[in-house]
Amino acid sequence: MQTPWEYRYAHRTSRMGSSVIRELLKLTEQPDIISFGGGLPAPEVFPVEKIKEACNTVLEQQGALALQYSTTEGYLPLREMIARHNARFSVEIAPENILITSGSQQALDFIGRLFINRGDHVVVESPTYLGALQAWNAYGAEYVSVPCDEHGMIVNKLEEALRVGPKFIYILPNFQNPSGATLSLERRKKLVELADKYGVPIVEDDPYGQLRYEGEHIPSVVQLDSRFRGPNGGTYSGNVIYLSTFSKLLAPGIRLAWVVAPQQVIRKLVMAKQAADLHTATFNQIVAYEVAKGGFLDEHVKVIRATYKERRDVMLETMAEVFPSEARWTHPKGGMFLWGILPVGMDAAEVLKVAIEKKVAFVPGFAFHANGGGENTMRLNFSYARPEVIQEGVTRLGLTLKEMLSKNGK
Amino acid sequence: MQTPWEYRYAHRTSRMGSSVIRELLKLTEQPDIISFGGGLPAPEVFPVEKIKEACNTVLEQQGALALQYSTTEGYLPLREMIARHNARFSVEIAPENILITSGSQQALDFIGRLFINRGDHVVVESPTYLGALQAWNAYGAEYVSVPCDEHGMIVNKLEEALRVGPKFIYILPNFQNPSGATLSLERRKKLVELADKYGVPIVEDDPYGQLRYEGEHIPSVVQLDSRFRGPNGGTYSGNVIYLSTFSKLLAPGIRLAWVVAPQQVIRKLVMAKQAADLHTATFNQIVAYEVAKGGFLDEHVKVIRATYKERRDVMLETMAEVFPSEARWTHPKGGMFLWGILPVGMDAAEVLKVAIEKKVAFVPGFAFHANGGGENTMRLNFSYARPEVIQEGVTRLGLTLKEMLSKNGK
Repeated sequence: MQTPWEYRYAHRTSRMGSSVIRELLKLTEQPDIISFGGGLPAPEVFPVEKIKEACNTVLEQQGALALQYSTTEGYLPLREMIARHNARFSVEIAPENILITSGSQQALDFIGRLFINRGDHVVVESPTYLGALQAWNAYGAEYVSVPCDEHGMIVNKLEEALRVGPKFIYILPNFQNPSGATLSLERRKKLVELADKYGVPIVEDDPYGQLRYEGEHIPSVVQLDSRFRGPNGGTYSGNVIYLSTFSKLLAPGIRLAWVVAPQQVIRKLVMAKQAADLHTATFNQIVAYEVAKGGFLDEHVKVIRATYKERRDVMLETMAEVFPSEARWTHPKGGMFLWGILPVGMDAAEVLKVAIEKKVAFVPGFAFHANGGGENTMRLNFSYARPEVIQEGVTRLGLTLKEMLSKNGK
Repeated sequence: MQTPWEYRYAHRTSRMGSSVIRELLKLTEQPDIISFGGGLPAPEVFPVEKIKEACNTVLEQQGALALQYSTTEGYLPLREMIARHNARFSVEIAPENILITSGSQQALDFIGRLFINRGDHVVVESPTYLGALQAWNAYGAEYVSVPCDEHGMIVNKLEEALRVGPKFIYILPNFQNPSGATLSLERRKKLVELADKYGVPIVEDDPYGQLRYEGEHIPSVVQLDSRFRGPNGGTYSGNVIYLSTFSKLLAPGIRLAWVVAPQQVIRKLVMAKQAADLHTATFNQIVAYEVAKGGFLDEHVKVIRATYKERRDVMLETMAEVFPSEARWTHPKGGMFLWGILPVGMDAAEVLKVAIEKKVAFVPGFAFHANGGGENTMRLNFSYARPEVIQEGVTRLGLTLKEMLSKNGK
């Protein structure tokens, strides 16, 4: 007889679903659609030649090492390099504070595995990163949403949320996915203090920190927490778990990211990773180290910044020209996304349906809200499409919005 | 104040521990110790040059694709190739029956995530693969152990275990890790029938199936299940979830494996993977495809077989010469491990302590028993060390055993 698989699945699978975005994006896979829906880096900035050289060097000089099983913690020279990099931002971190993961999504999964009992609360921004919700839903997380404005999480509202007794606070302070907002320095300091006051850890997700196109770099939350706690003898033992990634600095197709956390948390994460996939691909780690070790990424990030700044500017300029006056949008100082806000009552999911007919797509903002809301918002990606394509796509979108508004108005 | 992290961890972490083996192996990391403890492939057989060529070709011809995000299911040409490969063994499989994972350990983790509620029972062999226990402990699995002999799981004992109402049966039928035993054809057929009779799925873990050094290939359980169910129109919809890996055919450092399962199970596994790490490294998948597509692995497997066969033979011959007559051991027909059985009452963990003083190491067999037992057993790996090193190590081990036996005898 046929196996009735659906009755075999564990309870946690009831909250595992394919992401709304993925389903929507399937509609946009026709080649003539201009999609601002994804979150892909521009393939034009991948340092293909540099990676090729590194592959050759690594395989010629240490092929046996690079192709063998390796430690769960990650390739030591790579972790040492990341620790040195953090030292530039005056965060004292030892290699023992670092775990290499197969992309930041894996770090989010492990954090869920480590901390979330079914029904535990997590404080998130509203809107927040969808991948984090997906990772933690499987562990039975509930969410307390804190509203945001153009300077990120409204920290005055955070204290209320902290009194719920959450397991941790999740925050994406730089050029947030999806909103593009950046948490101000004042608010970061207040965040560190409030988290300390209530004894609630912070998970800081920082994939885009180095992709700033204007204004001054703001210290990361882990850096402010480190400063708040004073000298620590070269290892980090504070209240923040910090995530970053090579996906946006080098390439996402090699799946390479890292976690910075107190040593005791890293030790637990290592156990999680051991059971989950043994270790991140040895070859990819050594190749990334080979590419980055001479300071190459510093130079390369300048190329990425110039490319994405141009694309962001083209998107903003075109929006100013063609979007209806009723729409507003954010002006992100970096990253890969901006956030459109339509008049209240206008449903971005309905807009998407009409937009797809006009061969342009985006992600409706409701998908990024853990507890509902945001029906009149939309996320637009500006890193992937070339400038002339952005111009054309935004023009189509502007027309769509104007037509729908004038119809609704009648 | 310091964050008291230990009070923040979720309940499931109480059963997450570093593996006993890892802790033991730390003792053996001194460079002058000959260790049969690990489970590493011989680096001498890594096709370094071939992988280098493939990296160059892939980056030159499709760098933008190989370095970009990709689908969770895995690179389609790679899945098609695996489906064709299975067709050679007369299992009808469509690419939709296949998910690419970051090593088989990840597949084990996802299977736990998908099926195991806290307290659910899993039928395992005794002894069984330790990595599976590690993966499923975090989900709260309990185990029903079925005893094994030199022909694998004693299937007559399986029926009792099935009446417990387990979620699935886990079996490693070829050259099992740790015991080296191979499940006979008769028992495989009986296993398929019993699983069908009780409606309990089978998870077949087959990392070593192609590494046979003597005797005839025995059809896999998924193949027998497929035959049992009759023609299926080109897709697999039976009762088995089958795992295999490129770790032993190509190299473990690229972390590449696959799952074969009914489409509805694959769809659920895809959701699990999406939340866990988005997808397996695009670059690694395309490189492996490039290496394997011309039938290279068929040739390469012959090299691996010849290398490991020699090492196995040297280990067996040396054991016959130097081991005390009280000890017995298996004669594996393939794979990477053999299993030593000491006189009852002799504790292999105690033997290990003395062995380490004599600069030789192995893994005590108790670690592989889900419900205790096996204190007088030991796992020896023969794939990693060179023949002359195997000879020296086994000689040291034989001396250790003889000394301990003669002491105990007095």
